[in-house]
Amino acid sequence: MTTPFLPAVSLITLGVADVPRSRRFYEALGFTASSQSNESVAFFQLSGVVLAVFGRDALAADAYVPSEGSGFRAVALAQNRASTEEVDAAIAHAVACGGTLVKAAETVFWGGYSGYFADPDGHLWEVAHNPFFPLSDDGRITLP
Amino acid sequence: MTTPFLPAVSLITLGVADVPRSRRFYEALGFTASSQSNESVAFFQLSGVVLAVFGRDALAADAYVPSEGSGFRAVALAQNRASTEEVDAAIAHAVACGGTLVKAAETVFWGGYSGYFADPDGHLWEVAHNPFFPLSDDGRITLP
Repeated sequence: MTTPFLPAVSLITLGVADVPRSRRFYEALGFTASSQSNESVAFFQLSGVVLAVFGRDALAADAYVPSEGSGFRAVALAQNRASTEEVDAAIAHAVACGGTLVKAAETVFWGGYSGYFADPDGHLWEVAHNPFFPLSDDGRITLP
Repeated sequence: MTTPFLPAVSLITLGVADVPRSRRFYEALGFTASSQSNESVAFFQLSGVVLAVFGRDALAADAYVPSEGSGFRAVALAQNRASTEEVDAAIAHAVACGGTLVKAAETVFWGGYSGYFADPDGHLWEVAHNPFFPLSDDGRITLP
């Protein structure tokens, strides 16, 4: 008998306007699309979770919710890095790949260093150096 | 020298209206808040990624973006499970904890079984059984 709800996010799906465009963006960023990907969806195996890009309308339809929506989505994905230099390099790379610079990285009140870019659909990514959160070489946090 | 962008999501932040309320919801669901949590933010160590709940306005301010936004957010988190029964039990548990049933689980066109609930702020969670994606006991997918 397992617990009713596992302490797990297996997969994150981002709804996008143009799946092939998003696939190209994330491939340029450095992700590898799985063989399970097709014109309607792309899956990327990341360190601890799978990322999917799927049509925005198709995602709404899958959940039986209206697809209308605008503005701030109140969600951010974050990649933590081992140094401020790696944060700057990651954001510069994302922008070179066609991402939009949202906030150049800077020292933040909690003692870290962080910035934001947006993917082609405006999904927010933070890139952060947090000296208080132990980090594996493959980008996974172990909370204290 | 590491790659400019790692194949990793270290942390997912959900912007919420009431951090203590969201913390209680996710604790009821079965997540354990880290000692790094406080009244303004809660962090949960999950299998492969960290989940954070943070004030919606604070998250927008952190990214220097306007906090206005409404409707579909085009993002879904998913927990994959080993059977259809586990999917049903997970969604029932989430609803018992104060989540909103968005879509009762049903067999879907791609050959799996899935449903959706929303957290107290409307963030969408899918719970799915996908017989084609190998799954660990702790809810992590290894893509074929």
